[in-house]
Order: sequence, then structure tokens, then C-alpha cells
Amino acid sequence: MNLPPTVFNPPFRITRASHVVITARDLAARRQFYGEVIGLILTAQDNDTLYFRAVEEACHHSLVIKKGTRPACAYIGMRVMTEDDLDRAKSFFESESCAAQWAEMPFQSRTLHLTDAAGVPLELCASMPVMPRMITAFTAHKGGCAQRLDHYQIVTPKVREACELYMAAGFRLTEYISPFGTSDLLGVFLQRKGNPHDIVFFNGAGPRPHHFAYLAPETHHLMHACDIAGELGFGAQVERGPGRHGLGHAMYVYFRDPDGHRVELFNTHYQIMDIENEPVGWDPSDPKISYPWGMPAQRSWFEQTTDFIGAPAVELARKPNPMTLETYLARKATE
Amino acid sequence: MNLPPTVFNPPFRITRASHVVITARDLAARRQFYGEVIGLILTAQDNDTLYFRAVEEACHHSLVIKKGTRPACAYIGMRVMTEDDLDRAKSFFESESCAAQWAEMPFQSRTLHLTDAAGVPLELCASMPVMPRMITAFTAHKGGCAQRLDHYQIVTPKVREACELYMAAGFRLTEYISPFGTSDLLGVFLQRKGNPHDIVFFNGAGPRPHHFAYLAPETHHLMHACDIAGELGFGAQVERGPGRHGLGHAMYVYFRDPDGHRVELFNTHYQIMDIENEPVGWDPSDPKISYPWGMPAQRSWFEQTTDFIGAPAVELARKPNPMTLETYLARKATE
Amino acid sequence: MNLPPTVFNPPFRITRASHVVITARDLAARRQFYGEVIGLILTAQDNDTLYFRAVEEACHHSLVIKKGTRPACAYIGMRVMTEDDLDRAKSFFESESCAAQWAEMPFQSRTLHLTDAAGVPLELCASMPVMPRMITAFTAHKGGCAQRLDHYQIVTPKVREACELYMAAGFRLTEYISPFGTSDLLGVFLQRKGNPHDIVFFNGAGPRPHHFAYLAPETHHLMHACDIAGELGFGAQVERGPGRHGLGHAMYVYFRDPDGHRVELFNTHYQIMDIENEPVGWDPSDPKISYPWGMPAQRSWFEQTTDFIGAPAVELARKPNPMTLETYLARKATE
Amino acid sequence: MNLPPTVFNPPFRITRASHVVITARDLAARRQFYGEVIGLILTAQDNDTLYFRAVEEACHHSLVIKKGTRPACAYIGMRVMTEDDLDRAKSFFESESCAAQWAEMPFQSRTLHLTDAAGVPLELCASMPVMPRMITAFTAHKGGCAQRLDHYQIVTPKVREACELYMAAGFRLTEYISPFGTSDLLGVFLQRKGNPHDIVFFNGAGPRPHHFAYLAPETHHLMHACDIAGELGFGAQVERGPGRHGLGHAMYVYFRDPDGHRVELFNTHYQIMDIENEPVGWDPSDPKISYPWGMPAQRSWFEQTTDFIGAPAVELARKPNPMTLETYLARKATE
Repeated sequence: MNLPPTVFNPPFRITRASHVVITARDLAARRQFYGEVIGLILTAQDNDTLYFRAVEEACHHSLVIKKGTRPACAYIGMRVMTEDDLDRAKSFFESESCAAQWAEMPFQSRTLHLTDAAGVPLELCASMPVMPRMITAFTAHKGGCAQRLDHYQIVTPKVREACELYMAAGFRLTEYISPFGTSDLLGVFLQRKGNPHDIVFFNGAGPRPHHFAYLAPETHHLMHACDIAGELGFGAQVERGPGRHGLGHAMYVYFRDPDGHRVELFNTHYQIMDIENEPVGWDPSDPKISYPWGMPAQRSWFEQTTDFIGAPAVELARKPNPMTLETYLARKATE
Repeated sequence: MNLPPTVFNPPFRITRASHVVITARDLAARRQFYGEVIGLILTAQDNDTLYFRAVEEACHHSLVIKKGTRPACAYIGMRVMTEDDLDRAKSFFESESCAAQWAEMPFQSRTLHLTDAAGVPLELCASMPVMPRMITAFTAHKGGCAQRLDHYQIVTPKVREACELYMAAGFRLTEYISPFGTSDLLGVFLQRKGNPHDIVFFNGAGPRPHHFAYLAPETHHLMHACDIAGELGFGAQVERGPGRHGLGHAMYVYFRDPDGHRVELFNTHYQIMDIENEPVGWDPSDPKISYPWGMPAQRSWFEQTTDFIGAPAVELARKPNPMTLETYLARKATE
Repeated sequence: MNLPPTVFNPPFRITRASHVVITARDLAARRQFYGEVIGLILTAQDNDTLYFRAVEEACHHSLVIKKGTRPACAYIGMRVMTEDDLDRAKSFFESESCAAQWAEMPFQSRTLHLTDAAGVPLELCASMPVMPRMITAFTAHKGGCAQRLDHYQIVTPKVREACELYMAAGFRLTEYISPFGTSDLLGVFLQRKGNPHDIVFFNGAGPRPHHFAYLAPETHHLMHACDIAGELGFGAQVERGPGRHGLGHAMYVYFRDPDGHRVELFNTHYQIMDIENEPVGWDPSDPKISYPWGMPAQRSWFEQTTDFIGAPAVELARKPNPMTLETYLARKATE
Repeated sequence: MNLPPTVFNPPFRITRASHVVITARDLAARRQFYGEVIGLILTAQDNDTLYFRAVEEACHHSLVIKKGTRPACAYIGMRVMTEDDLDRAKSFFESESCAAQWAEMPFQSRTLHLTDAAGVPLELCASMPVMPRMITAFTAHKGGCAQRLDHYQIVTPKVREACELYMAAGFRLTEYISPFGTSDLLGVFLQRKGNPHDIVFFNGAGPRPHHFAYLAPETHHLMHACDIAGELGFGAQVERGPGRHGLGHAMYVYFRDPDGHRVELFNTHYQIMDIENEPVGWDPSDPKISYPWGMPAQRSWFEQTTDFIGAPAVELARKPNPMTLETYLARKATE
């Protein structure tokens, strides 16, 4: 398998997936969904924007929701270690032919706006105002009790290009999907913070955001988030799970917020930091990839997403044909 | 709503759902499934039979699996309080025109074989040999860590007849399904032991056993049972869930064993003993009945069951038309 | 061992431990403790009284807190099946030389006030107004998420007398403590509802209420109740645990409310209904009785209690000498 | 407060706490303790040594137990990123007057032996043989289901000296204990991997190992480890907890293995990576430091430890006087 090389001494230091900026049609309604079901803490709000952080986060925000007429994702954010890293990041991305310009964003230090090799709008910064960690403010814990933002998943026809760019920037590849005997990369898990992923790219029409994911503390929090969703009228927003992933091994549940943004709560990731840990490859025909038990995800999970603002999605020449719940049930009916 | 009357001074005392007798084609394979995935303790075995009890049970068995060429259910069992109750039970059922005869069954005191108003083969006894409770034998706990047998669900066209017979025998109706404004009984939850059900009857071609259910201690045990199932090659046996019931409110997961017998693990039932607790009715069109969140059960959950030995199933004049996962997804595709 | 006989056909039917009536000096403060830490639902209140029920309870109250100048327990309550059972109960207790008179209590049907063989003030009734079960009102779940009242523990020099009276009234003895080779009864677990206990009597100066106990759904709820207690300034009220019982096998944590009333949250009890289940005896010198792991309870747990109103405690001729945490640590220091 | 400076561009890269090497008198007995109670996986063994890794670890070992006549700790281990980092580490430590020499250790790449500023014997390496992660080998999960080694705690009179050395080596200080208004450092939490600590130094006679800690997945695993300990005869080895930490906020339980080595299982740590996260200081008189609820640790937890081989402990001029369980109970008795 021809994989891009791991860069152990990267030109600058991204430290972690940091925050996501999305639009919503109804801020009051989204405040309820993310506050009560997902369990985020509202840090700040104004007429046009909600700023949420997760229960253990000391940063100002990991989810920014802006009022908009059409649901979309404006940016996904990464943290760099220092201001110096930010300057070096600009040079690096420009040398990789990625657009990069400075921006002023509220509640963030000097911010760099980028477009990555897949066309994803990225923003990088080194710091945010410090907020109290709510990890022991137990009376404020609600729903899924989201602990911290963990990763994003992006759909794109340019999985290999994205993989190459991010690995050149110091990301490590932990797991990937590739038909055995080929060099096709259909999915890549890339990380900086020492667990399976900060960002994931999957093959499909894009660039499009597939989901963003928060860590939840325990199994029962996944179920509790679903129960709260049901109680508050969001029962149909539980799109997949609770279940168990093949790749990455996490326990998961996926929600669609009422604008269609997909958010995952998951648990039980592993730590991966050591030099000897080579990327683990999976064949897409391995049934354990998508559902070690139970049934596959419904078609909407594979096909429905929002857009990135200003990044028109490109269709794939050969459309992916994953095993969906619909296909699974149709086959079962004929057995 | 015209419901049968509650009998607070019944002619004899059934105390609880007690045990189920099923057949399987491969005892060694079933030993693995019920031992490792469901977490039952093997009490005894011979060439033709496995006797299992659950983790906290001091009775000899709650699940008997007999070698057979065709998967079926031979009996569902109930306990009565004393030998006197058994004699009075015989008189009662005979007066209700139900066949009743004495039988000798291994590891059970004097046993009464009955056929109930729905044609279900029942066996009643007052005692079994005492076995050690394994509730604190933590090293022997496996998979779903099934604590105790709780209830059965039966499919039958004779829901009202069954409800009348069991209520006359002292069962209390806790919840039922009936189209509002009618007297049709489409589902009845009947209990003796003070929680929502020992036996449930649902409308459909029958009599057929739909499932038997063991209580599991905590949310994570449901997920762990699924994970063990996946690891041991039983991943496709997870038929429904984990999820949340509408009626009865329990958290659940359903497995089909490799012979097609359906077993439920569930948690968080309520206690119901007081005279003022009237039966709670649900309208079948209430979407919260079958899935407070997520998606409905796949068609197999509604339609596939095994048989009772010697009790040919009668088709319904008007076949039930529940909201299945297949229908749900088809409708969603056209929205 | 000379145990009182089990009465399988009792003269009347008590069904379960039902409610407790205590006094408190500060109702607003107790509302916070029982609402936020224990997780009870406030059903009703007036200037002098708080009525709480637990999360799954459909009865009006299981905890009544009345304003008083001195913390004490007024009554422990039991439910009977029907009004007829209440009349038969009066006859039974009078024939046992126990004072019995009718009383009118708010939110209870006709109530019988009794003094049992240990001097405990008891109240029996057949019904209460029905309230909604909050079992799926997940947004209202707090702290330990107490599900239902389960049992009381009483300290008395008259353990055998109490055991005889309650067994004559149809209670079954599930576990007991007795020095092997003697007929001394130092502790008895008595039940009507089919789990290890509705009422427990332990040897000591009394009659005094030791604790009342609510079932909690899962392990994490016990820890969460402690965490909430710590956050709200009740950290010192966690008197014992979380830990594991020897007798009864439950996982537990004990709180003292700020008036000194002791309340237990516990989980994982077993069901016990069958005629063949003989009482299980324990020798008090068995170290597994009080702490299968960790350390014994502090002295206050053994010695400090509130009083029953109007029931002066009688000292024991020979004071119990249990292994306390203080003794355990002193012995360990000299090893 | 006068704290050592954070070094964001350290001379070499330690990535994480990696492994600990201890001695035991009875390897077969320790195999049971660490395998069944803590839940480690045995990677390899020979006549003199056991090599364990935790459930999700892909490295060869995180716990090495060598047969010895006296229980002691031989080394605590850290990982560096690359072989280059190892060379730079040697130069760094030598420039800091710390002894450093190369060593050959089984199942580790080139290893550097160091003595740190507190006299602690350290070993650094860049890689180990890769083993299968057992994170989804659910049938192999036991007891506390230890996921991965997380940190060490060391007792030493040289807290400040250790803090200065480790911060110069790139460790970040996350939390510390210092009497407000002084510059005394009584406890420091130092980390490289982005959570509260890889190594902790507390004031006391030393250098001595206080404990090593494994992450456990959920609350119930802490309780299950205790229950298994009780069942297997290790009940007295549960020295403290389950409970909740003040500093670091984790849920914990501490075991002493039968040789006296102390091992912690804990859960719910936070992530800390951002430049704006200043060290958080605590005053030692704050009662929330050691027990947000319940009671303080018994004296043995503060005072009993094993030794480092070849590193004689130096007594403190002024012995620490923490609030112990013994003192707490004595004070309570006089109230």
C-alpha cells in the first residue's frame, strides 16, 4: 500500500480539532437541542450567534452557531500550539498552494483562514479566552454530557490529496480504508492529539461536512441523550445507533440537529502516540467495518449532509455504493 | 373501555413467570450463545438437555433447551406459591375449559400441564431444587449478565380471551393497547409479581412465542451483550436495539438465537402493586408506543417467531399492519 | 436454628414498604437535599409539610417531611392490598396485643396506626391519590435518581419479638444474623414484596430508625448522588460508601441528611418469592457480612440514629460491639 | 506565585508515561491480582518476569513485574517520540547534572537510564514491539478493565527541583498545591500527553513511588474491580475509594497489591493542550482538595509506599501533616 510518509518533525504544530462554525435557522431551538440533548454549556450569545463549549472544555467555544437562512458549515477549526506555529502554518499552506489569509474572529486570537486540498474552509488559531471547566459542576450536566470536541468527518472525492496535505502538516494516519491489493484510499483517519482522529476524510461528493463528534463519558450518557431527545420531541433526530464502530472501535450515536447538521456522541477511544504504531488498513468489503453487530446505517447517514459555505460540492465519477440499511433489509427480504 | 375485572382475591396464587422450555438443533452452540452473550449460568446438562439459570436465580432453571430437529417452544412456565395452589389451579383451569393434567418433569416439583385460552402450553409448579445465587460470583458474570427471567410475550388472535382468563386467575393488567373509542384489545401486559408484566399477549397469527425476557442490571450490560455477540460471530443476531420502549418504558435489546428464538435483555422496569393503579391504555397510532426515539423495529421482529409444539397457529382475519422499519424507510425516501 | 415459622397464608396482605414520615427543622433546605441529591420528586407542599415521591412511583408520597423542632421519625408506612386487608390487619394486631387505631392522614385512604412488638409506630393504608410516574420524564431526573422506596432498617433490643410478629403477619425471612450454634437473632431481613427486605431489624438500643432506603437504577447514580452532594455543600453527609453489602449483596451509599436522618441509595437486589427459598443465616463473626472489600462503617453508622416520636429507646443489657472503622484503623496501627 | 516557566519548544519530546517496573515476591499471585482485579492482559512471561499491557495498549508492556525478595520499584518509564529525541534527552539530562546511561532492556528499543532531580530512576525509550490492541476483545476484559497506563505519583522532599527539571524538559504544569501567599510547592501535576498528568510529585520523605495509575472506562468498572477483589480474597487491598478527587477531578479507587505496591484505577480526566491554560493552584487547607465528599484517605495512603531500588529515601525536615481518616474520626469523636 502506497501511503504518504509520516512526518515526525512537522513544520508547525497543530494540536487538536478545536471548534466548528455552523449556521442555523432558529437559534432558540438550537440552544435547546445542543444544551439539553447533547449537553453543551452556553458560553455566550448575542442576537446572531450562540457560543457553546463542552463540559470539560476551558476554551471559549467548540461550537459556534450563527443565524442563517440556509444550514451550512462555515469553518472547521484547529488549534496550533503558539503564535509562531500560526505564522509557520501560513507559510506551509501557501507553499502547498492553499489559500490562506488572516482574519479577526470574536473570542479567538489571531486567526488564519485556509482552504485545504479538499476545498474545506479551515480556521486556525492559537488561543481563546479561558472559561471555567464545568467538569465538576455536576448540576449543570445534561443529556449526553458532551465532554469535549474530538473530531470532524468530511466527505470529499479528494481523500488522497487531503491525506497527503494533512500528513505533510504532521498529522498521523491511524486507520484507513482501501480495497486490498489497490492503492485507493476510500477513508482516512488523521490525528494530532494522540487518539484515533482529529479529522476523517471519506470518499464521496464533496467537500461536505459529514459530522462533528463530541466525546461522552460513559455508555449510559449515549442512551440518556437519546431519551432526552425523545422526551423533548427530537426522537426522529436519532439517526443511527447507539452502536459500535468497526474502525476506531468507539461506541456511538448519531443525531441530526433540526437543520440537518450531524453530531456524534461517542465513547471509548484509544490513545495512539508511539512511533511504532503503523496505520491500520481495512478492506471495504469487511462487514466488520461498518457494523460489528446489528444493522448498517440508513442511507441518509451515507448520503445526506450540509454544505461548506463557498465550497461547491463536486460529484464523484463513480458514486460510492455502501451497504445501507435499505439495501440490507431488501436483501434480507429475498433470502 | 370494557376491560375484564381485576380479581384481588384470586382462587390460587401464581407468583411469577418462571421458566421456558425450547428446542434447539445444536446444544453446544446454544450453550455458547446463552452462556457468553446472554450471560446465563449452566446449572446442569445431559445429552439432550441444557438447564440454565440467571445470575441471581436460586431456582434450578429458568431456561431449558432440549435437543430437537426443529426449533420450537415446548412450554412456558409459571410458579405457584404452594402445592395447594397447584391443586386449586387445576380446578380453576378445568372450570375454564382448559386442558390440565399432572406431569413429572426433571428438577421440578409436581407439575401441572395446561393449555390456556390462547392455546399456549403452560406448565405450573411450586418448587425446584435450590441452587446457589451467583449474584456476587462476579468472576462468573458474562455478556449481558442476565439477572432473572422476567416475562414472556405471546402472539395470538385471542388477546381478549387470554386477558380474561389470566385476569380471572389473578393477573393484573398494567398496560394495554386499544384504538381509542373501541373495545379492541391489541396488546395486554399482565402481571403477578408486581412489575409491568409476567406475560404479554399481542394480536397476530398464533399462538406463537414472540420472546422471553431477562432483566439485565445496567445500560452498559445491554451494550456489552451486543459487543460480545459481535465478537463471537453472533452480530447478525442483534435484531433490534439497544433502544427504549414506549409501553413499559424499559431499555431493551432483542437477540435472535441461531435457531430463531427471540430473547430480550431489558432494564429499568417499574414496580406496580397498589390497588389504585388502574391499567394504562395506549392508542396504537401513538408513535411513542413503539419508538420514543430512533426508528421502528424491522419487519422480522413483528412477523418472525417460532411455534409452540402441538399448537398450530391460526391466521388473523385482518393481518396487523404495524409501522415497520421497512415501511418507515420507504416513506422517508418519498418525503 | 429456632426460627419463627413462615406463614404462607397470612391473615391479611401487606404488600410493601410504602412511606416514611420524618420531621426536619428547615423544610426549604431539606427540599434541596432530597430533591437534588437523592433525586426525589416534590408532589406537594404546604407551610408545614413536604410530600416527595420517587421517580417511578405513581403513589402520592413515599417521604413526608414535617416541620419540627427536633428531628425524629413519626411513622413508617406499609401498604395493604385492599380495605378488607386493613380491617383484618386491625384484628390481627389487636390479637397480638399491639395498639391499633384508625387515623385520618392527608393524601392517604383510611389509615391504621399501630405500635409493633418493638414499639415502632407504624401506619397502614390501602391507597393514595395517583400521581404521574416520572420514570420517562428524564429531564426531571436528578442526583441519585431514586426510583422507589424499598425498605426500612430499625434498631431494637427486641429483634426476635419483631421477627415473630412480622412473620405471623406474613412477612418472609430472607436473611438473618445469628452466632452459629445459638438461637440469638441479631439481625433479620423481612419481606413481603419479593425482594430481600421491606423491613430489617438489628440488635441495639431502641426502637430507633436506622435508615430508609431507595432503589437507584445504576452504579453511576450512586456516584452521581455523592458528586452532587459535594457540589451543593453536602459532602460531609456521605457517611458510608459507595460500597458493597455482604447481606443482601446490594451496592450502597449512605447519606445523613442535615437533621441526621439516614437514607440509603442502593442497587442490584435479588428477587425472592419461591417456597423453597429458606432463610439464609450469617455468623456475625464472618468478615464478609459488613464489608466484602474496603473498610467497615464508621462508628456513627452503627450508633447514631434519630428517635421514633413517642417511643423512648431502651438500652441493651449487653451493648453490641461491631467492628467499626475506628476499631479497624486502631488495630491496623498496631499490626 | 513563582512557578518555573513553561517551555513550549522543548529540547526533546517525551510523549507520555509509558511503563513501570516493579518487583514482587510471588509472580503467580501477582498474575492473578493484575489480571483479574485490575484487568491487565499478560503479554509475555518467563521464570522471572511478567509483562502486562492494558486493554487498549498496542505496546508490549506497561507493567513489568520481576521476581524479587523485597517489593520495590526499579524504574518508571517514559516514551520519547523518536530515536533522535532519545539522544537529545541524554544531552539534556547530562547538562542538568542527572546521571544518564544507555541500557539494553528486553522488548524495548534502545533505552536510556536516568536519575532525575528527585533521585527517581527513570527509563526512556522510543519504541516497543507492537501487540494487538484488545479493546474490542471483549471476552478478554476483566475486573477494572484497565485501558491504558496514565501516570505516576512520586513522594519526594524535592518537589520544586523536580518541577523545574520536568518543566525544562517540556512538561506542562496543570495543577499544583501551594499555601496561598507562599512559594512552597507541595504538589505538582506535570504532563506531556495533554491530560492532567503523566507524573505527579508530592511533598514527603523520598524519593518513593506513591502509585501508578491506569485509566478505567466507566464508573461501574471501578466498582467491579472492587467486587472482583472481594471475591478473590483481595478485599483488604481496597485502600481508598471509590471516590472523587479534588485536584484533577477524577473518580478513583486505590488498591495495594499484596506486595504493597499501590495502583489507582480512575476515570473522567480532562484534556489540556492549549497555550492559554495556566497552571491551577490549590491551597492545601482547602478541604475540597482531598475529599469533595465523604472522608479523607486513611494514614497508610499518605505514609506507606515502597522504595525505588538504589534510591534511599530522605526524610523531610518538617513532616507533612495531612488530614487523615484517623485524624478526621478522632476530631469527629470529640465534637
